[in-house]
Amino acid sequence: MTPLLSNHLGGKWQDGSGPGTPLFDPVRGNELVRVDARGLDLTAGFAFARTQGGAALRALTYRERGAMLAAAVKVLQANRDAYYEIATANSGTVKNDSAVDIDGGIFTLGTYAKLGETLGDRRFLLDGDAARLGKEPLFQSQHVLVPTRGVALFINAFNFPAWGLWEKSAPALLSGVPVIVKPATATAWLTQRMVKDVVDAGIFPAGALSVVCGSPAGLLDALQPFDVVSFTGSADTASRIRSHDAVAQRSVRVNIEADSVNSALLLPGEAIDSPAFDLLVREVVREMTVKSGQKCTAIRRIFVPESLYDATAQAVAARLAKTTVGDPRNETVRMGSLVSRAQLVSVREGLTLLKSYADVLYDGANTSMIDIDPAIACCMGPTLLGTRQSETPQLHQTEVFGPVATLLPYRDAKQALNLVRRGEGSLVASLYGSDVSALATAATELADSHGRVHVISPDVAQLHTGHGNVMPQSLHGGPGRAGGGEELGGSRALNFYHRRSAVQASTAVLATLQ
Amino acid sequence: MTPLLSNHLGGKWQDGSGPGTPLFDPVRGNELVRVDARGLDLTAGFAFARTQGGAALRALTYRERGAMLAAAVKVLQANRDAYYEIATANSGTVKNDSAVDIDGGIFTLGTYAKLGETLGDRRFLLDGDAARLGKEPLFQSQHVLVPTRGVALFINAFNFPAWGLWEKSAPALLSGVPVIVKPATATAWLTQRMVKDVVDAGIFPAGALSVVCGSPAGLLDALQPFDVVSFTGSADTASRIRSHDAVAQRSVRVNIEADSVNSALLLPGEAIDSPAFDLLVREVVREMTVKSGQKCTAIRRIFVPESLYDATAQAVAARLAKTTVGDPRNETVRMGSLVSRAQLVSVREGLTLLKSYADVLYDGANTSMIDIDPAIACCMGPTLLGTRQSETPQLHQTEVFGPVATLLPYRDAKQALNLVRRGEGSLVASLYGSDVSALATAATELADSHGRVHVISPDVAQLHTGHGNVMPQSLHGGPGRAGGGEELGGSRALNFYHRRSAVQASTAVLATLQ
Repeated sequence: MTPLLSNHLGGKWQDGSGPGTPLFDPVRGNELVRVDARGLDLTAGFAFARTQGGAALRALTYRERGAMLAAAVKVLQANRDAYYEIATANSGTVKNDSAVDIDGGIFTLGTYAKLGETLGDRRFLLDGDAARLGKEPLFQSQHVLVPTRGVALFINAFNFPAWGLWEKSAPALLSGVPVIVKPATATAWLTQRMVKDVVDAGIFPAGALSVVCGSPAGLLDALQPFDVVSFTGSADTASRIRSHDAVAQRSVRVNIEADSVNSALLLPGEAIDSPAFDLLVREVVREMTVKSGQKCTAIRRIFVPESLYDATAQAVAARLAKTTVGDPRNETVRMGSLVSRAQLVSVREGLTLLKSYADVLYDGANTSMIDIDPAIACCMGPTLLGTRQSETPQLHQTEVFGPVATLLPYRDAKQALNLVRRGEGSLVASLYGSDVSALATAATELADSHGRVHVISPDVAQLHTGHGNVMPQSLHGGPGRAGGGEELGGSRALNFYHRRSAVQASTAVLATLQ
Repeated sequence: MTPLLSNHLGGKWQDGSGPGTPLFDPVRGNELVRVDARGLDLTAGFAFARTQGGAALRALTYRERGAMLAAAVKVLQANRDAYYEIATANSGTVKNDSAVDIDGGIFTLGTYAKLGETLGDRRFLLDGDAARLGKEPLFQSQHVLVPTRGVALFINAFNFPAWGLWEKSAPALLSGVPVIVKPATATAWLTQRMVKDVVDAGIFPAGALSVVCGSPAGLLDALQPFDVVSFTGSADTASRIRSHDAVAQRSVRVNIEADSVNSALLLPGEAIDSPAFDLLVREVVREMTVKSGQKCTAIRRIFVPESLYDATAQAVAARLAKTTVGDPRNETVRMGSLVSRAQLVSVREGLTLLKSYADVLYDGANTSMIDIDPAIACCMGPTLLGTRQSETPQLHQTEVFGPVATLLPYRDAKQALNLVRRGEGSLVASLYGSDVSALATAATELADSHGRVHVISPDVAQLHTGHGNVMPQSLHGGPGRAGGGEELGGSRALNFYHRRSAVQASTAVLATLQ
């Protein structure tokens, strides 16, 4: 029997009472550990987090909570090697891809640790200045942001067990709100291990950070009116969460990050040998292959002028052909495996669907694999599709969560923007060009349907942070199909964990709030 | 047959094809007008608003849209007399109560007209400063707020046909988002008339402001991903809206204002003859009787120290006894009728329920009525309930939407705050006292569970804006039972109608966004 991972709930480590669900190595196929949450008293665990964890966190100032996050960063850094080992074994990722998750998570946690320092020794935040309520200045309205007195439940996705944990937990804990994280089962090990290291180090008050692995029934039923829930995953599950009584009837605040068919757009007027063209090609290949395309921010649709359709296909294909795929333990391998057999099946199905509407411009099926048994490993080569029928609806609606993208040509700038918007709300679009004014215009045109617009001009070729990399300074989320959520964005992330209230009072009373 | 009110949709006036639903005078019982929305092409109407109205509004700057709101204010002011006549006939309100709705609405519209002036000649807003993404300052992240490219659907409540229209429409239109308002049927006349006056004056572009009266099937079905919906009304309907496919599956942004069992709290240490005690008594009576208690912000629960329970009951009762009730056309009448027979029945049922848990401290059933036929008019006298069993759950959960409040004593400050929080999220709590520090502490303790905390100390006795008055400068909304929504709050109201996006770009590109 493989080890059974314990859950941390109600301020103590608790094993599930069931046989456990196994987690596998997606490259070698062997079972690694098991998770189980059967028999946990969720009601008591959530209540403990609310009353003990929440009260203890709220008793601290932002600066003190920031210092706790900084202490957690140190613990995680001391255990980095173990996290990389778990990622290799359980996610099948090469070292560079594991870094996006592990070091990206620690970096984000560190960013919020520093933010706590700047917020200082306060226990609530002022929101703007006081506003007069009439001609006399003696009675005014001061908005404040105070931590919500509930728990933050995170239902996370399989592709970022480390980053997904910390990009949500950091702003919650800094806000003074206790966290209960439910990682996706397939990759729950890394999340559980990081929580365990931090909990065992005794950094946070009891009840501040809990982890529930596996699939306990009734997780949402345990939510109360002042709790919040943040979900990353499929649109179907998102819809069920939104319709659950906790959200629909008890006004539990919800944040959703769901599907996203992200775009890369080469603006008109760039030649085949232009720097912008080259930047697009490089970024597309990077986005298709990093984490085997298992990033919610990855480029799925590539838009270029009609005249550059063939040239783009050739340039991307030439680079994809150099992508080595196989066992991440082999240092010559650039791209590891998908995260599980279920994902491999799902991506193959999606690819088959897209192939019925688009041509194969580069076929990943021909990729030679290194050090793996193809019957066992969840590896697949990157595939570029494309069609001149750019308006085909399915190509704008289907998110295939693997190393797959579709090239689509456009006639003019107007059609290009319309095609990008056919994604009906995405996390990110990237723009490539050299005309500052055209780039700015396209960025503001696309801003309402994208949580982030990433503009790559030749002057920032070496400086830009990447289409798919989520920086803690910037908003992460998107409207419509992308779920309508907002995460990160520096201090903006704290809003979700605070309640805004207008205090209308005399100048004397308001002075004490400063 | 009474006149059939027309709907404005798709840029034109359209009559429903059905027999119409009658609207009544709740005092005299006669039918006034009819509304009908049967047969309207909602899909086409919503599409017209999105494409024609939205594009035309977005082509204007905030300053230009603010000027349009200012022009609408002038039109409304010119027609005030007609609005007061409609309010008297259809809502049964005395002049002072009609003013809360009509002049409150026009004042709020005017406030946003002025805000447009300060936002200037821009078409999108900057959200904070640019943030560096790395050590070099050449690549940064600038958050922007851009108008959503959808419609704003307002499903409004019967108690504020004028204010409810403008407090939502003003920030939407200022943001560049077209409005479709569906007023509550019972009092739809005033909303329809105000929209008609403004539309006929040709102030807004075609499709910018639409009104649908009656109950068309499929209103929510017509919503698309970039639309928003704002609902004011019952928790049951709110739950249905949240679970609707438009919200659950298409990520339509939703704002809910539902039930609220608001509190007034006299802090410990105030004597019977203290100014704070007197301020509480006056405010409670005002809140119970203004608009016959049909305000979502009205005081429903009154908390006083145990030692002041009897004295408070006597003082409130003495003032309630002076409240004249009857036909609002009689100038000696202070309080008119409830809005409809359905509401009268509902309030009587709620009162019966509360009476099974509390004593009647002042019985409105004995109030003598002026100029009405009690068999016809929807009038009822104000009733004060009370019990020393302050923890009784039903008294903290039941919103009776009429001239009814319940007096509850507390032992100490800690219990008082806990009892207030038993409302599980309210729009507003008011605090009465003379100790600045104690008032500030109580305000911040209650801020997370209230959208607004209204602090009344003796120094602002003549200046404060009232427990139940919603000022456009302050947030209106509340967590939990109150629905979790946010309206008004000055420029904060614009957030709901904008999408936030992070533009990551070179310094040169970001400079053009300034």
